[in-house]
Amino acid sequence: MTVGGASTTADAGPRGLFGDPRRTGHGGPDGDPTPATLAALERDLPGAVTADLADYLAGRRRACVDVADEFAGAVDDLTRFVLAGGKRLRPTFAWWGWRAAGGAGGAAAPAAVLRAVSALELIQGCALVHDDLIDDSATRRGEPTVHARWASRHADASWAGDPTRFGAAVAILLGDVALAWADDMLHESGLDVAALARARPVWRAMRTEVLGGQFLDVQGHASSDSRPETALRISRYKTAAYTVERPLHLGAALAGADEVTVSALRRYGTDLGIAFQLRDDLLGVFGDPAVTGKPAGDDLREGKLTLLVALTRAHPDRRTAAAVECAVGDPDLDAAGVDAAREALVALGVVDDVEQRITELTASALDAVRGADAPILTAPAPERLADLAVAATRRTC
Amino acid sequence: MTVGGASTTADAGPRGLFGDPRRTGHGGPDGDPTPATLAALERDLPGAVTADLADYLAGRRRACVDVADEFAGAVDDLTRFVLAGGKRLRPTFAWWGWRAAGGAGGAAAPAAVLRAVSALELIQGCALVHDDLIDDSATRRGEPTVHARWASRHADASWAGDPTRFGAAVAILLGDVALAWADDMLHESGLDVAALARARPVWRAMRTEVLGGQFLDVQGHASSDSRPETALRISRYKTAAYTVERPLHLGAALAGADEVTVSALRRYGTDLGIAFQLRDDLLGVFGDPAVTGKPAGDDLREGKLTLLVALTRAHPDRRTAAAVECAVGDPDLDAAGVDAAREALVALGVVDDVEQRITELTASALDAVRGADAPILTAPAPERLADLAVAATRRTC
Repeated sequence: MTVGGASTTADAGPRGLFGDPRRTGHGGPDGDPTPATLAALERDLPGAVTADLADYLAGRRRACVDVADEFAGAVDDLTRFVLAGGKRLRPTFAWWGWRAAGGAGGAAAPAAVLRAVSALELIQGCALVHDDLIDDSATRRGEPTVHARWASRHADASWAGDPTRFGAAVAILLGDVALAWADDMLHESGLDVAALARARPVWRAMRTEVLGGQFLDVQGHASSDSRPETALRISRYKTAAYTVERPLHLGAALAGADEVTVSALRRYGTDLGIAFQLRDDLLGVFGDPAVTGKPAGDDLREGKLTLLVALTRAHPDRRTAAAVECAVGDPDLDAAGVDAAREALVALGVVDDVEQRITELTASALDAVRGADAPILTAPAPERLADLAVAATRRTC
Repeated sequence: MTVGGASTTADAGPRGLFGDPRRTGHGGPDGDPTPATLAALERDLPGAVTADLADYLAGRRRACVDVADEFAGAVDDLTRFVLAGGKRLRPTFAWWGWRAAGGAGGAAAPAAVLRAVSALELIQGCALVHDDLIDDSATRRGEPTVHARWASRHADASWAGDPTRFGAAVAILLGDVALAWADDMLHESGLDVAALARARPVWRAMRTEVLGGQFLDVQGHASSDSRPETALRISRYKTAAYTVERPLHLGAALAGADEVTVSALRRYGTDLGIAFQLRDDLLGVFGDPAVTGKPAGDDLREGKLTLLVALTRAHPDRRTAAAVECAVGDPDLDAAGVDAAREALVALGVVDDVEQRITELTASALDAVRGADAPILTAPAPERLADLAVAATRRTC
């Protein structure tokens, strides 16, 4: 019952996966999954991921104490940040990629797969800690960001040097820890050698793609490259590949999926991933602050290059577009300015255009996994993937 | 002749190691090494490492082009930085760890081992790019650092936003690329599954230790923690474990070394690694700028916490110590101030103390691999390790 247990408690205890997991052959101590253990885990997959991360990170803490208590204390901050976080989208898609490809009927134990896909959250930990530093964001999920927290500690203690530089240094190093540990977690997951070998090319591609997407975002912003194709390329690599397509691909690879299945899941992933980002873009301008938790029109203020902005810049009606152009990148943008930009985006037809793309991309994604030509995926994966597609594209936060 | 060739040319061409290296079983296309191929490679091990990195990074470039030409261009900068660099100490120690433990007589082909140990230079690439950013260093090896170069590009192009922030963002992302690729390079090296499984715990420990050591350095500097034990702990993890001990351990693990051999190599590595750092500390204050390439007394100006400084702070003769205390962390320190600090360090006996420790640590390191109780290591490794010990501790730059 380790698997079911992992979904409700962070204190699953040692699972014997750390010595030389490759020698365990079939991926863990749990043997063949029963429908009951899978159902227990799938009732709260994000909870199971969080509990598994807690278990793994508690184990890593011990080695940090050997280096120095202060280092273990810093790593505790990283752990809190990772455990506090989010919807666990990447492990969820990876899990359903594995299930869709019939993974639960194969050799790998669910506990090993859960651990492997949970490692995606450590890559995400690195991405968020480093991104928050790059964007100099003060808060995330209502808490101070890692660099902001350590800058405050430095200032409160009246330490030597510049608090901002100190905060940046700690955030760089803790992000690096998360990136290195993601890899360790995958390799110590208890997956068998063949499954790991299938996973590695996907893992490798995903990490390079997300860093490439982040680079394009940073460079596009600086160079004021606001072509629609650039906005879509950034969405493709920074969001779609990293959040949906490659996680699904990773899960499918763990299950030893055939090419037809992989290809269907990747098409679903790319289309849905871009649709997800486009919904995000709309919420960044039109979202209700009470629901999104972010100030109204924050994306405009930050000058984010979204497809909305790119389509506006390419629009021939320059007079109407002016209200958007004025708003983008204006840190002092007020409510009236946000309203004017919103009206202009609607009047230009840009909002309809983006909504239309979301609809088409979502339909294409669903067609890939449930259409007439779709490969037969293992139940209940197609249904869950359809639910996830709706949740990702019709959400309000 | 791939192995010999790799030591002289960066254009070794595809080596067939990228598809699914785990399936190749015995680690590569080269079969059993002959003494001639080993000798050719070992005549210029740093050159062979550089050529192997060039080959690997050229392969990775192609996937970056798929994301975007601009990203491939940025990665070219990282490649230049990695290929330009240094003494290749970490791969060299790892190589001799493998040879010392009789690796060349085992199953792994030298080409696979060379690739695996060369991956250490990508970890080092991340460490240097991120460290230069943390320290805000403008140059390294006479060239602009990565963040400085990209900040200049931003300024030259009159792009939007702050050039410094842009340079920092690119340096963070390229350092992350190097860290992720280090891991890929190890896993695509063509090592067999058993060797990789032996390598992973060492690889895992090394990455966490070096990040822990860097954290301690940053935090010790900020909190003005100048205890000798803190200085030694930073040297232990930031330098000794990362530069000598764990690379040797990694190489020995690849060869399947027994515990006695691993233990001897690790003792050599820890002792020599700390001695290496202590020599570095002395050169940072007493080094000849014409030889070291750094301004005289630069470590004093930077306020670096070295054992020299820590021993001075703990010394009862506060009057003599004052000349050192005044110099440490003074960015405007002039030649007279450097001279006064040097005289004080000699007068306090601190220099003799550190020289004595270097002598003792070097003797202990040599005893571990050549003493009466040392395990029998495969020739010519003991001789080469002795040469490396002398080079590391008696150098002038």
